[in-house]
Amino acid sequence: MDAATDRAAAVPAIAEARRRRADRARQVADLLRREILHGGFGAGRLPLEAALAREFGASRNTVREALDLLREEGIVERCPGVGTTVAGEKYPHGLHRLLGLAETLHEHGSVTNEVRTMGLIEPPAAVGRRLGVAAGEPVVYLERLRRLNGLPLSLDLTYLVRDVGEPLFEADLERNDIFVLLEQVAGQPLGTAELTMEAVNADAHTAAVLDAPRGAALLMIERLTHLSDGRPVDLEFVRFRGDRLAMRGHLRRDVEDPAAPEDP
Amino acid sequence: MDAATDRAAAVPAIAEARRRRADRARQVADLLRREILHGGFGAGRLPLEAALAREFGASRNTVREALDLLREEGIVERCPGVGTTVAGEKYPHGLHRLLGLAETLHEHGSVTNEVRTMGLIEPPAAVGRRLGVAAGEPVVYLERLRRLNGLPLSLDLTYLVRDVGEPLFEADLERNDIFVLLEQVAGQPLGTAELTMEAVNADAHTAAVLDAPRGAALLMIERLTHLSDGRPVDLEFVRFRGDRLAMRGHLRRDVEDPAAPEDP
Repeated sequence: MDAATDRAAAVPAIAEARRRRADRARQVADLLRREILHGGFGAGRLPLEAALAREFGASRNTVREALDLLREEGIVERCPGVGTTVAGEKYPHGLHRLLGLAETLHEHGSVTNEVRTMGLIEPPAAVGRRLGVAAGEPVVYLERLRRLNGLPLSLDLTYLVRDVGEPLFEADLERNDIFVLLEQVAGQPLGTAELTMEAVNADAHTAAVLDAPRGAALLMIERLTHLSDGRPVDLEFVRFRGDRLAMRGHLRRDVEDPAAPEDP
Repeated sequence: MDAATDRAAAVPAIAEARRRRADRARQVADLLRREILHGGFGAGRLPLEAALAREFGASRNTVREALDLLREEGIVERCPGVGTTVAGEKYPHGLHRLLGLAETLHEHGSVTNEVRTMGLIEPPAAVGRRLGVAAGEPVVYLERLRRLNGLPLSLDLTYLVRDVGEPLFEADLERNDIFVLLEQVAGQPLGTAELTMEAVNADAHTAAVLDAPRGAALLMIERLTHLSDGRPVDLEFVRFRGDRLAMRGHLRRDVEDPAAPEDP
């Protein structure tokens, strides 16, 4: 084999080695992400690359690539001479039960809500239909930027049926979950909610509002909440910063669909 | 007021008008996204801009900006002279019950799995601990690229305890969910799973594997699944393309935490 053939054969071999290292780096990154998310390293420092390489049976290069992946995600920071440190907390939002943000994060700090817009609107047909309000009947529209310990966490667009929504004009929306206020106004607990959860990239304007990079991954939730008597009262579109929040819950194999009402 | 002062005053006014339009565009986009996701327009064409403007009580410019947001997300396509069409289906993954991908998507087409890696490995401590295997005990590692109707949907990294994992070397992994195969091998149904759900941006290598743009929003799930006797057997890290899948489920206000086992 002459040198040229040698080089031609080497190209796919190098590509293959790169692919294998990238695959391995992803494996290591996933396991480290989980440890970080569950407080495995406290708010502190990750072990040295050499120690991580031993623990994962991986090369130093692979470990470095894994740490770079986590850095790109904003989960860790890397400083020459200092090592790798946990960059910021990612908060767990309970997925086992219908909960407001302040309720689910009460152990993690204080949620404050900046009301960006609030008022009565004539709802588009798609909103009116889902909330079961007659044509021409206004609904309350509310837009809030929600912060945890002062840092932007989510942007919430909320449509409320008028009779339970209008009294909220007088409520302390800065410091209370809508869910808790709705139960007070309605004089009955909430019942069930249908939700859809997606991952989307932040558009430029949303990114600016959430103080996140353009294109940042957001966890987007659409949720229609009913009172315990079954009436739909609250339609929300919520964008969570993906780097600040994780949903956590449990699923069972043996249930059919415990809470399923008819989809409207 | 002279002309210079006039211009100075106009700059914040223009910025404010832009901000208001961006906010309105987001509202319209969210409602349209929901309609598209739930098949409101079939696989077909959206109403004309003028009709949408009427429906949403918004200006043509706002509607155009909303459609641009959905185009950036890959949900719709816009063609001069043709209008706005639904770009591709986003599939609903049931979140009410512990389900495999083929199980939950059976109405939407056929799931095929490309096995990228499979073998026995000595697990990192973080994996061994969660699966409850003794130090030195190997586990099965499996990596699959999963497609729905031929299009990449998710990249799944799976760690299985040896006794239920090793028999899968002989199974038809291309066409079966791991969950179904595990139940056959173990001779008992699965029980519960703890899961964490996040939105992350695709790194370059993952994006290439999933045939998505670099930085694309992914729905990332980490899930530890137990047999019905409580033994953890299956630890998975799953990355779903955000533009191809949405999680759908129901939450109830009145449950404490029906399926919660102790977090390991």
